[in-house]
Parts: sequence; structure tokens; C-alpha cells
Amino acid sequence: MYKPRLFAPGPVEVPAQVLSAMARPTVHHRTPEFKEIFLRTREKLADVCCVSGEDVLILAGSGTSAFEAGFLASVPKGTKVLGIDAGKFGERWIKMASTFGYEVIDLKFDWGKVAEPERLRETLKANPDIGVVMTTHSETSTGTLHDVKALAKVVKEENPDALILVDCVTSLGATEIRPNEWRLDGVFSGSQKGLMLPPGLGFAWLSKRAWSQQNLSPSFYLDLRKERKSQTKGETAYTPAVNLIYGLETSLDMHLEEGLDNVWRRRERFNNAIIAGAKAVGCQPYAERPSPAVAALYAPEGISAPDIVKGFTKRGMRIAGGQDHAKPVMFRPSALGYLDDFDVISISVALEASLRDLGHVFEQGAAVVATMKALET
Amino acid sequence: MYKPRLFAPGPVEVPAQVLSAMARPTVHHRTPEFKEIFLRTREKLADVCCVSGEDVLILAGSGTSAFEAGFLASVPKGTKVLGIDAGKFGERWIKMASTFGYEVIDLKFDWGKVAEPERLRETLKANPDIGVVMTTHSETSTGTLHDVKALAKVVKEENPDALILVDCVTSLGATEIRPNEWRLDGVFSGSQKGLMLPPGLGFAWLSKRAWSQQNLSPSFYLDLRKERKSQTKGETAYTPAVNLIYGLETSLDMHLEEGLDNVWRRRERFNNAIIAGAKAVGCQPYAERPSPAVAALYAPEGISAPDIVKGFTKRGMRIAGGQDHAKPVMFRPSALGYLDDFDVISISVALEASLRDLGHVFEQGAAVVATMKALET
Repeated sequence: MYKPRLFAPGPVEVPAQVLSAMARPTVHHRTPEFKEIFLRTREKLADVCCVSGEDVLILAGSGTSAFEAGFLASVPKGTKVLGIDAGKFGERWIKMASTFGYEVIDLKFDWGKVAEPERLRETLKANPDIGVVMTTHSETSTGTLHDVKALAKVVKEENPDALILVDCVTSLGATEIRPNEWRLDGVFSGSQKGLMLPPGLGFAWLSKRAWSQQNLSPSFYLDLRKERKSQTKGETAYTPAVNLIYGLETSLDMHLEEGLDNVWRRRERFNNAIIAGAKAVGCQPYAERPSPAVAALYAPEGISAPDIVKGFTKRGMRIAGGQDHAKPVMFRPSALGYLDDFDVISISVALEASLRDLGHVFEQGAAVVATMKALET
Repeated sequence: MYKPRLFAPGPVEVPAQVLSAMARPTVHHRTPEFKEIFLRTREKLADVCCVSGEDVLILAGSGTSAFEAGFLASVPKGTKVLGIDAGKFGERWIKMASTFGYEVIDLKFDWGKVAEPERLRETLKANPDIGVVMTTHSETSTGTLHDVKALAKVVKEENPDALILVDCVTSLGATEIRPNEWRLDGVFSGSQKGLMLPPGLGFAWLSKRAWSQQNLSPSFYLDLRKERKSQTKGETAYTPAVNLIYGLETSLDMHLEEGLDNVWRRRERFNNAIIAGAKAVGCQPYAERPSPAVAALYAPEGISAPDIVKGFTKRGMRIAGGQDHAKPVMFRPSALGYLDDFDVISISVALEASLRDLGHVFEQGAAVVATMKALET
């Protein structure tokens, strides 16, 4: 029997109750029925984003559409932008801003390293005309969790007028995000990550300061101001992805029932347990400060990471490989989706089996036992 | 027992087999499994769009996102644009083009009227610098089917270099579209209309001439050229709405099995039967040339159209009302979704019941019998 498992950093294993919620008959989006569902779901989404009572906008699109919409809704034309570039997604936002004609300073950090607040400070000091800082929170390509709270503090200290826009695509639902307490200006995410839905929804929150910006670049489908005007009333500017929104409510209910603190703790516990298991069989973590969203791991010396990924695949378990220059050396299992302790242990079982196939020598059960022990904490 | 029915011009009644296809576990989008599903589905989509073997791109977004993407991928900066404006959606594209800084000539026609090819010809003669013509095919707000074939002929006769971009949002799957034979340059649609899916996917096809344009406005999430490069290989530039794509394949299979000619004939027969029933109880069609996608109908003199819509709603049947100035006088049932003869007759049953509630006098069964007779043809 082939039973596929999707343990990648998005898309992820979707709970059956979410899939069946999505199979409910589509309601028309200009009706009181939809309005009620939509307003209720938006309220729960704001709770899960730790901005209760505020506007988190829901788009039919991916996380990228949400970041782009938020950028276009808050960055005045001609603004000098700084992009923290410590992986593929940091790079993406720099490309995006450049595409729309913005001057962008590319603040590079080695892959796997944390973006150092003090280097950001120096760059801001040297360029007092920087109006916007863009960063990822959980940089999925390197498995790194940037210290967004500390980065935002530096931005506000150096230039209180500057905005900080944060890619929370894989961090939402995986780890603590406090948009207001940390004084962030934009938080963007997508459905197929911590929220455990199929892909197809983008989420965007902006601060008061971000909403107050003017002289913006044009946008139409991704016009967040138009969306905000509609969504506040329980409508949408364009036709929403109704059935995904059914699934979203189910997933949000699951999060709120478990409690956000518990969800975050559980995800961190899972990720640490995956890393502990991997270390026990000679796979070191890639990230200086691991993100609970994904365990980026080095293959043991002399073993090809793509071959490890293939070993997982052969067993019906889908994990991610490395990207770009990290492809030969990195593999990335993730507990971002619908997983429990048994699933996390299964990841170590699959890792052991894949490594043995490749001739790597270790004591059988070493990864599994290390994972089991780590899960007990 | 409350059994809701969604007989609006989108979203529509989704077949249970489509909903259950969507409930299949999400696969990762960077895998051979997805690639196979995606390439196969894209091939079937091209067949249903009558452009077999060509590229129809699939976006995570609405029909509006697809039109915007197609526009930005094919209209050089500074192009003078003509928008045919005979209803809400014609208006939308004019607003969109203006938002992105294009000069737009607004060629107005009264609501319910067909866009006359000869008026288009005059305008093109008077403005030989028009580079792009935008039109709707089925203008949903007025229930009108524009003669896109004739309009395209005029464009190519007057200015062979000009492009014609067509909003086929409600016409795809509802009536004949021949992008190549008619020499169209852009065809755009969405999932929640004739293809009977929940909302969340946009579709875009461009002609060779459209793809060859240069000096374009910037786009990032909606960059169709980037999508084309990926989708040709069975990938996507950004994360695709995987589960909606499962549903799409099921719906395309249903269309191809029935045969496109049969689907179009059936939809026209259904729409004519709705109109025949309505006429028998004093409701005249709004459109000079009705679109098979939706029956736009006048309420009988002295009766409020929103009250008729309410009468349907009370019976669990959701139809659309009129928009803007047509709101007081228009109601719009539609057979765009998953309907059969019984459902079409039920629309007339609901119409009779709603009209009787409002004191309108007619022979009981008149609408129903007229609909039944019309269905026999």
C-alpha cells in the first residue's frame, strides 16, 4: 500500500477535516451567507496573526501575491528600499521591488546565517534615505529564523519613519509573530504553510503607518486598499476563493482550540526533534538559528543530499531538497503541516533507511531514539 | 429540508465529483506527480479553449487577475487603448488600463445593446493610433453576447497591428470561442463560471502577436511570460492552487466527454428555455443578443426586481440581481453551472412562485410549460 506523506515546508499535509470542509457546496460571494462566513473567518485569522480586531486581508493568490500587494500598498514611488538577502526568498522581494522600478540596497548575509541587527544598523546609518526594509522571518531556503523583533527595533531606532515589511510565509502558525508589539509594518503569508491548507490564498496585514502612505505605484487586482474597503464589510473586491476560505476557517479553529502558544511550542519541539535525530546520524543543521518551520540539514560528508531526498520519496515521504548552490548538500524535512509525534519519528525512520541505502554507517535506531528523547522535552 | 441551489452567473453549482476531486490530498508542486497532473490538465484546458496544443496559463487568482496579467504581458507602455464599454465588466477593464497609466478611449454602448462593429470601425478610423481593443465576450452585467468574431474582423481590417483582448470570463464553456480562427489576441477566464469550479483560478491565452510585444509595464506575481516559461515545463512561477487544479481536470474531462458543441448547444438551449419561461409570465429579456451564460430579465412592470430575487432566495435558489442602474428592474438566473433540464424547469417554478407572492397575475404553469416546450427543441 502506497500512503503518501507530504513533509515539505509547504505545501504540507492537509488535515482531512480541512479537505472535507472545502468540499462543501460553493456559496455565492455576494450573499449574507458568505458575508457571515467571511467576517467570522477574518476575525479568527486576525486572532491567529496576533492582531485581533484588525484587518488581515485575504487574497485569491499565493504568498507572493500578498507580499507584492502589501508592498504596492505601502511603498511610495521613488522610495529607497533595503532588502535583507540571506536566501531565496529574501532575493525574491529584492527582484520584485526592482521590477517595479525601486532602487534597492541588497544587504547580503551568507546562507544559513542570521541577519545581524548591527549590520542592518550600519547600513541604515550610512543610508538615512532608506524608507523601507524588507526581510523574511523564516527564510525557508536555509531553515533560518531571523530575529525580526530585533531587526524592527533597529529600523525604528535608526529611522522612525521607515517601514519594515516581513515575509511571514512559513513563520505564520509556526512561531511567534507579534506585529504590533514588535512594531512591524507589514506581515504577509500564504495558506499552504503553517495554516495547513492547500495553496491558493494569500494573507496581508499592514500597520497604521503603512496604510497612511501615499503616492503609491499602481495596482489593480492586487490593490490592497480596495480590498480593505470591501473586506471590512465582509465582501471582496474580486471573486474570493470561497472553498479555500471554508478550509481556512476549519484550520483556524484548530489553531485557536489548541492555543497559539501550544501550537508554536509543538512546532518548535517537532523541529528540534527532527534535528536531534538527524544529528545523531551525522547530519548537521544548516541554520545558525533554526526556524521551527523547517529543518534544513546537511547530508553527511560524502553523501549526496538529492539521494537522501530520493530515499524519502521512495518511501512515499515527500521532503524538500536544497535550492541553488545548497542543492548538493542540503535536505529539508518539515513539520509545518498536520503532523504528530508519530509522524515526526517516522521522519527519522525514513532518514535512517535512506542513509543506510546509501552506505552510511551508524547504529540502527540512533536517529529514532534521539528524536523520541527530544520529543519528551 | 433546506437544499440550496446556486443558479447565478458565477460562482455556480459545482458538481460533487469536482468537489471530491478537490478533497484529494495536496501533492507538492515541485514533483513529478504534480508535473504530470498539471501538464495533462493544461492540455485538456487548451482543448476546451479551442487552442489545442497551445499555452493556456493557469494562475492562482480570479478572472480579473488573468485579464490584468494578459494586458500587462501584451500592451506596450504608451499604447492608446480602446475599451468597449457596454456594462460593468467592459468598465472594469477601462479602469484597469487607466490605473496603469494608459490612455483609454471609452467606446460606450447602452446596457443590453450589442457592441456594433461599425461603430468600432469608425472609432478605429478616427484614431489610427489605437494599439489595443478590449472587449467582453459575454457581458455578464447585461446578459449580452457581443459578436467578438465580427469585432475582431473589424480590428484586423482597420489596423492589422492592433491587438484585441477578450474577457471570456463567463463565455468560456458557455458558448463557442475560436481564438485563432477569429484572430483574437487574448482570451481570459476564471474557474467559477462555465467550468463549474469554485473560484480561485484564472486562465489566460495570448496570440503569437501578443507574445511578441515588447516595452511592457512591470509585473511580478502576474508576470505571464515568467509563468509561460515555467508552465511549458509543467511547473509554475509561484505556488499553484493544487487542489483546484484537481477539480479543474475533472471538470475538463466532463466537458470533453460531452463534446464542446454539445455543451454549447445545451447551455444555449437552457438559457433560451429560461427566457421563454420568463416571457410567458411577462418578463422580457434585457439583452438584444442574449448570452447563453446568463438570462438577464426585466421584472414585469410595477414589480421590484430585488423582490423577485428575494423570492428565489426564500426558496433556497440563489440567482443574481441587476447591477448599478439596472438593480431595480433586472434579475439574472443562470444555467452556467452544473444544471440539467429539471433544474432549468425549477427556475421557472421558482419564478412563478416568486411572482405570485408579489401579486403578479398569470395563468399558473405558464412559465413552466413554456420552459418545458423550449427545452424540447
